[in-house]
Amino acid sequence: MEAVQNEKGQISIHTENIFPIIKKFLYSDHEIFLRELVSNAVDASQKLKKLASFGDFNGELGDLKVTVSVDKEAKTITVSDQGIGMTADEIKKYINQIAFSGAAEFLEKYKDKAPDDKAIIGHFGLGFYSAFMVADKVEIITKSYREEGDMAARWVCDGSTEFEITPAERSERGTDVILHMAADSEEFLENSRIQGILEKYGRFLPVEIEFEGKVINNTTPIWTKSPSELTDEDYKKFYQELYPFSEEPLFWIHLNVDYPFNLTGVLYFPKLKNDFQIRREKIQLFSRQVFITDEVKDVVPDFLMLLHGVIDSPDIPLNVSRSFLQADANVKKINGYITRKVADKLNDLFKADRKAFEEKFEDIGLFVKYGILSDDKFWEKAKEFCLLKSVDEKWSTLNEYREYVQANQTDKHENVVVLYATDRNQQDAYVESARRRGYDVVLLDNVIDPHFINALESKLEKTTFKRVDADTLDKLVDKGLNNESVLSEADQTKLKEVFEKTLDNKALTVSIEAMPTDELPVTITLPEFLRRMKDMSALSGERSFYGNMPNTYNVVVNANHPLSAKVLAAEEGEAQQKLAKQLYDLALLSQNMLTGADLTAFVRRTVETLA
Amino acid sequence: MEAVQNEKGQISIHTENIFPIIKKFLYSDHEIFLRELVSNAVDASQKLKKLASFGDFNGELGDLKVTVSVDKEAKTITVSDQGIGMTADEIKKYINQIAFSGAAEFLEKYKDKAPDDKAIIGHFGLGFYSAFMVADKVEIITKSYREEGDMAARWVCDGSTEFEITPAERSERGTDVILHMAADSEEFLENSRIQGILEKYGRFLPVEIEFEGKVINNTTPIWTKSPSELTDEDYKKFYQELYPFSEEPLFWIHLNVDYPFNLTGVLYFPKLKNDFQIRREKIQLFSRQVFITDEVKDVVPDFLMLLHGVIDSPDIPLNVSRSFLQADANVKKINGYITRKVADKLNDLFKADRKAFEEKFEDIGLFVKYGILSDDKFWEKAKEFCLLKSVDEKWSTLNEYREYVQANQTDKHENVVVLYATDRNQQDAYVESARRRGYDVVLLDNVIDPHFINALESKLEKTTFKRVDADTLDKLVDKGLNNESVLSEADQTKLKEVFEKTLDNKALTVSIEAMPTDELPVTITLPEFLRRMKDMSALSGERSFYGNMPNTYNVVVNANHPLSAKVLAAEEGEAQQKLAKQLYDLALLSQNMLTGADLTAFVRRTVETLA
Repeated sequence: MEAVQNEKGQISIHTENIFPIIKKFLYSDHEIFLRELVSNAVDASQKLKKLASFGDFNGELGDLKVTVSVDKEAKTITVSDQGIGMTADEIKKYINQIAFSGAAEFLEKYKDKAPDDKAIIGHFGLGFYSAFMVADKVEIITKSYREEGDMAARWVCDGSTEFEITPAERSERGTDVILHMAADSEEFLENSRIQGILEKYGRFLPVEIEFEGKVINNTTPIWTKSPSELTDEDYKKFYQELYPFSEEPLFWIHLNVDYPFNLTGVLYFPKLKNDFQIRREKIQLFSRQVFITDEVKDVVPDFLMLLHGVIDSPDIPLNVSRSFLQADANVKKINGYITRKVADKLNDLFKADRKAFEEKFEDIGLFVKYGILSDDKFWEKAKEFCLLKSVDEKWSTLNEYREYVQANQTDKHENVVVLYATDRNQQDAYVESARRRGYDVVLLDNVIDPHFINALESKLEKTTFKRVDADTLDKLVDKGLNNESVLSEADQTKLKEVFEKTLDNKALTVSIEAMPTDELPVTITLPEFLRRMKDMSALSGERSFYGNMPNTYNVVVNANHPLSAKVLAAEEGEAQQKLAKQLYDLALLSQNMLTGADLTAFVRRTVETLA
Repeated sequence: MEAVQNEKGQISIHTENIFPIIKKFLYSDHEIFLRELVSNAVDASQKLKKLASFGDFNGELGDLKVTVSVDKEAKTITVSDQGIGMTADEIKKYINQIAFSGAAEFLEKYKDKAPDDKAIIGHFGLGFYSAFMVADKVEIITKSYREEGDMAARWVCDGSTEFEITPAERSERGTDVILHMAADSEEFLENSRIQGILEKYGRFLPVEIEFEGKVINNTTPIWTKSPSELTDEDYKKFYQELYPFSEEPLFWIHLNVDYPFNLTGVLYFPKLKNDFQIRREKIQLFSRQVFITDEVKDVVPDFLMLLHGVIDSPDIPLNVSRSFLQADANVKKINGYITRKVADKLNDLFKADRKAFEEKFEDIGLFVKYGILSDDKFWEKAKEFCLLKSVDEKWSTLNEYREYVQANQTDKHENVVVLYATDRNQQDAYVESARRRGYDVVLLDNVIDPHFINALESKLEKTTFKRVDADTLDKLVDKGLNNESVLSEADQTKLKEVFEKTLDNKALTVSIEAMPTDELPVTITLPEFLRRMKDMSALSGERSFYGNMPNTYNVVVNANHPLSAKVLAAEEGEAQQKLAKQLYDLALLSQNMLTGADLTAFVRRTVETLA
């Protein structure tokens, strides 16, 4: 047995072992091969243009378009460009050594600020090898812009680690990459499939991409232009290009930042109304005009995902894990920048044309409220333009509203009570009662409002929110005044007993209150706290303590209504209980709580009284 | 310029270029490093046990547990085992050559059937290097079970491609892997974080894992045992272990298959009721007792994702892309196998104890229906045990039900009409009318039922489903009989005009029908087809043609009800219209369509009549 010797050495990676992993597992989606090859072709074309602009290339640029073609019989897909091409030596350097150009350089660049050359699509240097995800054999036929005569080269590799280089026939500068498709990837030989992939990843590439005789891309999408060159029509047209047959967007923000990171884009505000779930994942992420993903979950704050549009940034790392993205400093800065731009835009719109802003608020309220809930910096700006709508369609900012109702709706604890309805229709009887009292009622019927109300109570001073049916009006805005009852204490006790006996339900709390005579004889109220907790619980979709609590409600009998006296005066027993029951049923009806067999019986009883 | 020379050669991967990619991008989640290192340690321990069982190791096995420890001050995490250890030569072979043991072997094995040795956790051979995702420097101190004396070795690498091997002090057989954590990964130095990761990935590892003096795992989870060794209590206990504080499962299926793929597991049926969205992603996927993921989307059919439990299979490829998984032949077979097992289990339960099965159907109906909608093979079995529930709580199979109602509910086209309610309470008046007629009504109130009804109509012969309020009963089950009207044609026309004038709404269709006198004077019906399309549209969450259609409903006046004659006899004008309006309001009430200001007015009007 030998003793352990001190030894230094190099960790090695055996190509034949790692190559299968690169081929099969590097990208999560096989269709990516086409994005990579077309991007490389675009890259080669852009580089030539750049050389020409520097005076380093003096030949004819000619038609620099990239062509993709499918030969179904030969089972090949070919990507051709007229870009810079490669010499045999360059093939050896760039193709035969996987990741030569690649990772270190990438990581280096990615740590820093913006790369110095936006026009060149930069990748891992592994992209080319994604061809082997779908092809058995890959050929390259290429001729460098530097070469003259018959100096074209052909490279071929059958997916093993062995390659072969031979002289080739190619008169023109540029590169053809020919994939001989593997049996399990023949789906890609369908024109419709290739068309689909090209449209997905390449519709805004900066060099023309031709497939089946047609150019599939718009080489100068609006985010690459300056806002000063663009009209409203341009923005709307582009929106239709992104989301055909969509409703027109409300407005948009053109993003353009160079430092400390590089980002361009256009974000649109769609009409959101009350749709919370269904319209996400509409923002498309590009890197130098190559489509990357529409899963921008970690690139933009959650509430901004309600927006639509495009973001293009070479500074967002691609092909990396989600946890990496979340921790990325550039991504965090991008988040903050977009949030600020969006808040500023909303503020500008509010100040420039309040009337128009109010009209749009129905559609952006969900967005603004969600932003307020999730981002304190957004709240700081949004509190100035976040609006409340009264049931009579009057809009106010939070401060305006508080001032407006302060005089009439401040309770004995100096709290301003904001009365709200969550369903104008369902709570009509209660809303109308409040309005007869001169109180204002706001409509908070958005899915997010239970949380929004909670947030406002903690953010606004001495302000409390109560749903209009949470209690009787004298208790909702408790000014410490007591109405006088026309019934004696004894009669009140008796009345309470009659109702308790009639309802025969221990879960119900019956109380007798002296209310104005124009209120209903019986009212059902749902205490605010428990109801709100249940609403929030329902919204979260989780089962919770509150979600599982039974509904509780109170039955309030109006001592001062003439029918209360009539109940007391009725013959004890059936007659008395029948009247009490009818009054209770009417209260349930007002609260939309008379249902099922009870409702059927009520209707039949009422039909009989008419006959 | 040199001509292109014929040349063959080897594609090469420069270690220094690919290494950063392996380190940073191989796994999507940094916490995976701990799973990999602990799995390796378990592997080393299992191998020693195996050697002992073969007689190739005759020493003391001793305590084979794996220990994880954190030194917050030194900023290290150490994973120690008492397994086979490595000699310096083995280090050079297995550690210094990345992916040596790896990919080719993996791919080879993975093409075939079950691997021959289930007890050894097999990975890419890249797993160890995931340590560099979080560590600046990694040390290994190891002594092979073969070595005697001071033959321990220390390997160290600072994350460059350079390593160093030196002699080390270690008296006992086994391996310590010591990670010197990088500044950006210090979160992993928190005990709670490590505890969390260990519990996530390691709670069912087959060798004891100790952290902070406590063993964190159950080394023999029930799916590794034979069903014959297990009691119901064992299954229930394990369910609580997986999902603490959950309701008890309804029943379970123990999966165990060796050929043509290897799979064990236990699937539980939870009480589903009407929760469609919120309880998914509860199935946990393991590979040889190592937790892999709870995103089993492509491993089990969508409808089976409503189940809970564990699946353990070394044959499900890990760390590969979703599209790869979908195409994987093993995964497809696994899908089919699980579906079959589940259908058989349900059929057994149904046959063994129908009463108990009926009681459970409330909780598994969603599952069965979803399965029927998504898998024809499942339907073939499920049609025998899928149940319908009448509003009077009577359960029937599809065939039984059809036979039961056939005599009374076959229409003139020989179609059996199944009457259903989607809300027992809301449709009470209509349900009661149908029952007075001797018709049966089933309750189809599950979120999935609109689709289920559609599927049944296409699967069952000459069977049609109609909601109980879709039309008048004579039209719902149209037997081709005409009731005689007590009103003359002229009176009917006049009655229609009165109602049309009263309602004054072009969207409403008023019709006069001769109905039994015990039906309400006015009934509102919602035509089946449009309502059903709207229900399905709402369920899909998408905006659609049907979703955007306005609600339409018909107003049917019962010519034979005495109040119809009373309307005709009333003084033309206000008195007549007031009565007609009241009858219409009562019809709206029965259909839960009298709301808002109309309801408030109705209640106040009714209160006044009482005073």
